[in-house]
Amino acid sequence: MELHLQKAKNASAICTSLEPSLKNEVLLHMAKALKKNSEFIQRENKKDMAYAKKHNLSSALQDRLLLNEKRITAMADSIVDIAALKEPVNRVLEGWKVDSGLNIQKVTVPIGVIGIIYESRPNVTSDTAALCFKSSNVCILKGGKEAQNSNVAIAKILQDVLEANDLPKDIISLLPDSSREGVANLIKQDKYVDLIIPRGGEALIKFVSENASVPVVKHDKGLCHTYIDEDADFEKAVKVTINAKCRRVGICGALETLLVNKKIASTILPILKREFDKYGTELRGCKESQKIIEVVDAKESDYQSEYLDNILSIKIVKDIKEALSHIQLYGSGHSDAIITENYTVAEEFLNGVDSACVYLNASTQFTDGGEFGFGAEVGISTNKLHARGPMGINDLTTYKYKVYGNGQIRA
Amino acid sequence: MELHLQKAKNASAICTSLEPSLKNEVLLHMAKALKKNSEFIQRENKKDMAYAKKHNLSSALQDRLLLNEKRITAMADSIVDIAALKEPVNRVLEGWKVDSGLNIQKVTVPIGVIGIIYESRPNVTSDTAALCFKSSNVCILKGGKEAQNSNVAIAKILQDVLEANDLPKDIISLLPDSSREGVANLIKQDKYVDLIIPRGGEALIKFVSENASVPVVKHDKGLCHTYIDEDADFEKAVKVTINAKCRRVGICGALETLLVNKKIASTILPILKREFDKYGTELRGCKESQKIIEVVDAKESDYQSEYLDNILSIKIVKDIKEALSHIQLYGSGHSDAIITENYTVAEEFLNGVDSACVYLNASTQFTDGGEFGFGAEVGISTNKLHARGPMGINDLTTYKYKVYGNGQIRA
Repeated sequence: MELHLQKAKNASAICTSLEPSLKNEVLLHMAKALKKNSEFIQRENKKDMAYAKKHNLSSALQDRLLLNEKRITAMADSIVDIAALKEPVNRVLEGWKVDSGLNIQKVTVPIGVIGIIYESRPNVTSDTAALCFKSSNVCILKGGKEAQNSNVAIAKILQDVLEANDLPKDIISLLPDSSREGVANLIKQDKYVDLIIPRGGEALIKFVSENASVPVVKHDKGLCHTYIDEDADFEKAVKVTINAKCRRVGICGALETLLVNKKIASTILPILKREFDKYGTELRGCKESQKIIEVVDAKESDYQSEYLDNILSIKIVKDIKEALSHIQLYGSGHSDAIITENYTVAEEFLNGVDSACVYLNASTQFTDGGEFGFGAEVGISTNKLHARGPMGINDLTTYKYKVYGNGQIRA
Repeated sequence: MELHLQKAKNASAICTSLEPSLKNEVLLHMAKALKKNSEFIQRENKKDMAYAKKHNLSSALQDRLLLNEKRITAMADSIVDIAALKEPVNRVLEGWKVDSGLNIQKVTVPIGVIGIIYESRPNVTSDTAALCFKSSNVCILKGGKEAQNSNVAIAKILQDVLEANDLPKDIISLLPDSSREGVANLIKQDKYVDLIIPRGGEALIKFVSENASVPVVKHDKGLCHTYIDEDADFEKAVKVTINAKCRRVGICGALETLLVNKKIASTILPILKREFDKYGTELRGCKESQKIIEVVDAKESDYQSEYLDNILSIKIVKDIKEALSHIQLYGSGHSDAIITENYTVAEEFLNGVDSACVYLNASTQFTDGGEFGFGAEVGISTNKLHARGPMGINDLTTYKYKVYGNGQIRA
């Protein structure tokens, strides 16, 4: 392991000075190589699929694992898109001259060596590798063991392209020891690794956060709220709420708890119930809501649940203050929305909710790098520091200060 | 402890929405209160001074501890300066409209609850508290035990001002348990604490980094280099090198290892030696340098040393490549400089050295928030993420995305 990380660190010094044109050329070469080796990838993927069947993995999980011609083409296209992104390194963020006559420039630089831990979908392997390479970072990838053969095949193809371009293959590598111990070891190597990005279940995130000495940018859960204010436009309220819950129930930006102002609850809840019934959504409501519509009795644990399922908890609140307190207590700081036409209430909500993304009159399912206009997405950070919310490629950079003088000494 | 942190977290929700004018008024009130209570502070400080004498603390340390009328006035003036800084919260960093019609704003917000661990100088207590309050953060301060009475007095005065302004005193507090166990407990409380800033010795930094589950922004060591290139202007080279080493030898931006291009070594080293002799600097050089000037034989361990003392290691290198490799191997990523008139070599150095601050023809001792024009300094971060190098008050903020819609749903 130590040797592997040492090589990664050395490769990182080479990465820093790569010209944008070379990086983009290599990326296009990678895209071609994936398409050219489509059959090889599918052959390796079949081994993973066989493993999945043998171990009775769910059909949803099996579908995520599957690679076919079309999906491999999509992976290649995604790399082409990444090549087309604006160069993230060497952007001058700020520049100024100080009294001593020094010219200071704050310039973006790669982070260095990034360890990324993820699950299932093998396309994450090529996407992530391409995003890291485009931002001049070295990546050490640790995918799920169910996708091991596919990931090895994809990484090998990308490494071959690196070597064909006289670049060290260590720029993109899989973690050699993919066991839990391997991960535990990786997250302690702050001498070699600059950042760990864990994307996966709660147990993984908790394990990494508690044990890492390397800085971590988490992709944790989303317990998202929508608050329908008394001054809401009902049409918007219904449309947005249904979308936030039902468009896709399994993503982190999906609505989990609906808060409704009590002044309008008796009018809007029956309308919402009719719409949710069309989607077969199970509604679990507070005592107050039970007087208005037929719902399952919501327990304390419901308001603490990220269902990631076709279930919604509902709570009637007396005003914006109670909505804010509820979100402060139960929210996960991911995405929360208010539906209102009232300017002052809207601003109180947007300022008062301490979440990565706060929405006015829009669906929380917009929390996504693509929807934010970032192009390819690194993930959605639930960290407060370094990167928060949808992460674009610029979030894979940090900065340094370049200071230009002509002999200045400090007094 | 848990109750204390809970109160801090609750205070943080109140802090978020404080008006700039109120914050500034309270800060000016704090400045006045410090001056008004100067005698009380000095009385408490005398207890610390007595403790310091009794425990034979060095005269340098005793001088750092001492608070007199003049120093208390300086502390008050520093708060006035902090009040005058530009409001750091609610700055719109970027704003754009996406295809769906959503207006997205990336806006600065406070980090939340910040734990700051520091040593000796009691003025850090008022400075840090003021910086955190100005940026709408709650702080939990843990100073050195040698300054305990002074810190308690200062914190009490600031808390009284908060309460006189109907604000919770929990906005500024001292860690109730200031033992090592208290610190160990604090850095695990990611439920309540959003950031830990340790400023102090290597042991403290290491302990915090390895044991924290709260994100950490370190203020670690500076093993700074200056490389004198063959195309250096000798006058600048000598002036800058002497300043980088001798202006103050005990600060993290002080020069520790001088690298000299072999083509000019025999000319410049004798000049440098003459100058360093005036400052009584002990020079430890490589074998090559020993052929040119009289120096102590430098060992491997010298190149690994942050002396923080009037000692300098010297190494002759054959070219910029060797200078870069040396810095990559021994540097601490703090501040490094090159002295050259050659544009291409300068850029190779500035891009190739992975440090927070890289200098061309200037002294590494400029690494300082004040010199960078940031006003009051939070510290100098040796982290790569969130904040790197001199930290100004803006580095005490993070951001959220405010997303304004008019009923948008995701397709």
